[in-house]
Amino acid sequence: METHEHWMKLAVNLARSAEGQTSPNPMVGAVAVKNGRMVGVGTHLRAGTPHAEVHALNMAGEEAKGATLYVTLEPCNHFGRTPPCTEKIIEYGISKVVIGSLDPDPRVSGQGIARLREAGIEVVSGVLEQECLRMNEAYFHHRRTGKPFVALKMATTLDGKIATENGDSRWVTGEKARARVHDLRRRYDAILVGSGTVLADNPRLTVRLGGEAANHPLRVIVDSTLRTPPDALVTDVAEAPTWIFTTERKDPKAEKRLSEKGVRVITAGRGPRVDLDAMLAFLGEQGILSLLVEGGGEINASFLSGGHVQKVITFLAPKLLGGKDSRSAIAGSNPQRMADAVRLRDLDIERIGEDFLIMGYVDQETGKDG
Amino acid sequence: METHEHWMKLAVNLARSAEGQTSPNPMVGAVAVKNGRMVGVGTHLRAGTPHAEVHALNMAGEEAKGATLYVTLEPCNHFGRTPPCTEKIIEYGISKVVIGSLDPDPRVSGQGIARLREAGIEVVSGVLEQECLRMNEAYFHHRRTGKPFVALKMATTLDGKIATENGDSRWVTGEKARARVHDLRRRYDAILVGSGTVLADNPRLTVRLGGEAANHPLRVIVDSTLRTPPDALVTDVAEAPTWIFTTERKDPKAEKRLSEKGVRVITAGRGPRVDLDAMLAFLGEQGILSLLVEGGGEINASFLSGGHVQKVITFLAPKLLGGKDSRSAIAGSNPQRMADAVRLRDLDIERIGEDFLIMGYVDQETGKDG
Repeated sequence: METHEHWMKLAVNLARSAEGQTSPNPMVGAVAVKNGRMVGVGTHLRAGTPHAEVHALNMAGEEAKGATLYVTLEPCNHFGRTPPCTEKIIEYGISKVVIGSLDPDPRVSGQGIARLREAGIEVVSGVLEQECLRMNEAYFHHRRTGKPFVALKMATTLDGKIATENGDSRWVTGEKARARVHDLRRRYDAILVGSGTVLADNPRLTVRLGGEAANHPLRVIVDSTLRTPPDALVTDVAEAPTWIFTTERKDPKAEKRLSEKGVRVITAGRGPRVDLDAMLAFLGEQGILSLLVEGGGEINASFLSGGHVQKVITFLAPKLLGGKDSRSAIAGSNPQRMADAVRLRDLDIERIGEDFLIMGYVDQETGKDG
Repeated sequence: METHEHWMKLAVNLARSAEGQTSPNPMVGAVAVKNGRMVGVGTHLRAGTPHAEVHALNMAGEEAKGATLYVTLEPCNHFGRTPPCTEKIIEYGISKVVIGSLDPDPRVSGQGIARLREAGIEVVSGVLEQECLRMNEAYFHHRRTGKPFVALKMATTLDGKIATENGDSRWVTGEKARARVHDLRRRYDAILVGSGTVLADNPRLTVRLGGEAANHPLRVIVDSTLRTPPDALVTDVAEAPTWIFTTERKDPKAEKRLSEKGVRVITAGRGPRVDLDAMLAFLGEQGILSLLVEGGGEINASFLSGGHVQKVITFLAPKLLGGKDSRSAIAGSNPQRMADAVRLRDLDIERIGEDFLIMGYVDQETGKDG
């Protein structure tokens, strides 16, 4: 088992090396091993190109015969944009396949394993399963629910404030934490803010990584009446695409002006607020697997109380702002009991320069409305 | 130097083993070493009893001749309740003294070293100095300022909330963190809350450590008009002493009733609020070296904005409460700029059960009023 973990770890690292470039496909890594020696490695690089297993088998060539293949995700057994990996594995004479996690789609889960066993190949599964699942958490969530995996990102003082009463928020965290936000954005298919943030800060919402050209995520604005000014930086779609979700309360003239600039305006519900459920379903249909919410207190509260958040990413600055009217990270309606709080689990903490980064997953049984 | 640190570390551990029982004296540890072998150890146990060096020398006896003495604090050179340690060190024939930190009192700092050198003893100082200073941070602060060292303790959700709008706060943190609060209280000479907390929660404010008899700190209540009910649990002075600081706005009948119960009522200023500066000076004069503030949002804000806090101890629960009117850990007047926040430095973080404990020292150059 220890040997299995050693090679699987390598396959995980190979998979992760393509983070941010495989969507809408999952990250997958593969390693072929024969007599204790690595004979092939592969990573899935981009949708429409060969799967990780195929690369590893091609590299192994004749050596694949009798080898063990480590792969982070169950090999596919159906024709998609590429032929089924199971057939290629059988054809190359692999004698044992070690799998990290099963395919999450109940329609095909286990079918790859069944096909391999039918062909006389020994199959072991569940090696480093947690790591393999987490690596593709967005992909798996989208496959299961049809909606993007939502991470709520906040940057607060130690006393939970994101801005002063009059909106000053420059800066809550230090330089290193702010650089990390750009690295984080790069990992998501879309970034979301409310129109209030657009009006207050006029952000660009692009990925800036020290001058390097970056793959900018889709910019999503929640704007129930279309207050976003047509000259806001986010309306410059030459930099990155922008979609604005609004309601039937929208200003038709504003819609025309924004559309003329190339911004896509989508009506989600009658209002007064944007129907987040409909918005997420739409984004999911359009192939958006992951969404980073960088809202103010009201947007954050709407996402949380609606049960729409899977992960919370908090940058915590070691400072105390105070002020009875300073702005809190999460506003919204008032819970009556401390026990109504949303709990986080599987926490990770990291120091970033002078700040802390705390990440956790929402316990979906807690904090629901009503 | 590495050898010095090895033995000094031992002396620090010896000193710390008496934490909470030496006030108003500092914790001090001493180790005598000869030819690489430990020949004596000592710890200061309680005010009025021998200093650490004396215990170590007594244990070493004849072996002290030519030995090296490690001591966490500069040996005293004056007659206090006990004779000067310097004379005893010279008398026993110690050839080298290694010191952690100097005596912080400018009237005597360096005098112990001077006396030892005059007697031909080699002196090295500043070994594990930071650790030796921090261990007695309250003692040093009191010696320097005449006021207690103030630590602000908060227990908040990840979004900075201490209670719901209607005051429900049971519980913010888990069992282990709540147990840790009792261990923390034990280390302070006094615990402070506002009358609002007394009215809302009717706390006992004692140290409960799994049934063991404990040395309860002084209970301090800030109560500008004497709203504390005479039947509040904190007025039971058979358990622990209670002092209430009030103003000239106090209710004289309440003062009589509270005094009759054995509660000490002290008037600090004309009001409307208790003069915290006068209160701290009074507590310092009465030999209170350290104060743990367990306030609500307003008390916390008054202490912080007045520059009265040295250390901040935050228990952070991995949950999000939200609610635009939920109670924040720090309220008070509204700062106009994020740059006005009080910064913390020298941070420590620890996981306690499901919660986090974040500790830091207030950077006194930040967050001042005006």
